[in-house]
Amino acid sequence: MTNPTAAMLVIGDEILSGRTRDANMYFLAGQLTEHGLDLAEVRIVSDDAQAIISAVQTLSGKYDHVFTSGGIGPTHDDITADCIAAAFGAKIDIRDDARALLEARYEKMGMQLNEARLRMARIPDGAVLIDNPVSTAPGFTLENVHVMAGVPDVFKAMVASLLANLTGGAPLLSQSLRILRGEGDIAGPLAVLPGDFPDLSIGCYPFHNNGIYGANVVVRGSKAGLIDAAMTRLKQEIDL
Amino acid sequence: MTNPTAAMLVIGDEILSGRTRDANMYFLAGQLTEHGLDLAEVRIVSDDAQAIISAVQTLSGKYDHVFTSGGIGPTHDDITADCIAAAFGAKIDIRDDARALLEARYEKMGMQLNEARLRMARIPDGAVLIDNPVSTAPGFTLENVHVMAGVPDVFKAMVASLLANLTGGAPLLSQSLRILRGEGDIAGPLAVLPGDFPDLSIGCYPFHNNGIYGANVVVRGSKAGLIDAAMTRLKQEIDL
Repeated sequence: MTNPTAAMLVIGDEILSGRTRDANMYFLAGQLTEHGLDLAEVRIVSDDAQAIISAVQTLSGKYDHVFTSGGIGPTHDDITADCIAAAFGAKIDIRDDARALLEARYEKMGMQLNEARLRMARIPDGAVLIDNPVSTAPGFTLENVHVMAGVPDVFKAMVASLLANLTGGAPLLSQSLRILRGEGDIAGPLAVLPGDFPDLSIGCYPFHNNGIYGANVVVRGSKAGLIDAAMTRLKQEIDL
Repeated sequence: MTNPTAAMLVIGDEILSGRTRDANMYFLAGQLTEHGLDLAEVRIVSDDAQAIISAVQTLSGKYDHVFTSGGIGPTHDDITADCIAAAFGAKIDIRDDARALLEARYEKMGMQLNEARLRMARIPDGAVLIDNPVSTAPGFTLENVHVMAGVPDVFKAMVASLLANLTGGAPLLSQSLRILRGEGDIAGPLAVLPGDFPDLSIGCYPFHNNGIYGANVVVRGSKAGLIDAAMTRLKQEIDL
């Protein structure tokens, strides 16, 4: 049985301009691996409606789940919710359930729920809200697309809310072996493994730090026993 | 005059599994911004031939330049060079110029240029080599696709070799203003700016650290005077 597949769509000029180093993709990738969803593709697009709509449609059709981050705040460049609605031909407006959440929060904080903040209550018809325990303004799931905030601590909280209710598969397990030899010396012996362990993914990641050359060989799969067997074989093959 | 457009394709299971946090995208994004190329899209795919070929074809047709990272080492999972050749219907084999570079290096190091290492001399017909001052094995440019290594210090060196010969546009300049107010308070005044400064990109990036809420407003464009004017206007609008 294979795991459900997933893609991520990061929306934001600040990543593409090099101003901000992405943190959400790295976080989500680790979470999905633990939860047994196979992250197969990531796309990063700018705050451009056509780019967002087209990426959502493509990824939504291709994978079991799509996770988005960014563009659901109160400012003029926050166009994600409207783009998701457009991608599925859904209506979108300020929704009472989301408005009620925001009203309660801003009343408690003694702040005004102005027009800009009300934008965060724009939720497509048919979408299910994703809880935001950090700053209240909710994310949402429409069809197989999960729409979350770009601010890293809000994103993390939303992922936790979401994954608790999402059926995953077998967690992806891994073991790695650090080998202090050039990758070119390891490549030959390593090449025999994939044929004998077709259910495992075997990667080789070279490094060099301060003149020390080596590589980490990583064996991944969902069956611990199979990974053990591959690691034993790996050590034999490269004569460790 | 608009700047040339660019996309990046990151190839590697290790990013998608959450094992490694991407560094190359963040680096390249900053470099392209300085060099006057507009990075419009990034895709990350796994070490899967069909996924790589299809992404290369799409991005190559859509943007002026495509930069790839990963998958050009000596091991069985290094399939990028063959995929690039396949994407353009080019022949690929061990090429004499690349082989000569590797021979010189391994002879100098007293190491064997074995079959695995020779894989790194597989270069598509018609491609131009990209210099690798760190570990010799070259990258290459075929059509508008620039193929580079995934190891961060090698990637950086190749980007430097490449950008020195690539015609860019006007560097993207930016100024930012840190505002200690909720994003919802800034959104209204901020919304008037894009209409008056259509040549600038204006983004609002909220943060909260230790209970302090605020946002950075970033104004980007290629004309310094225009950015100055927008920043002055911004301060007036939000009454700073």
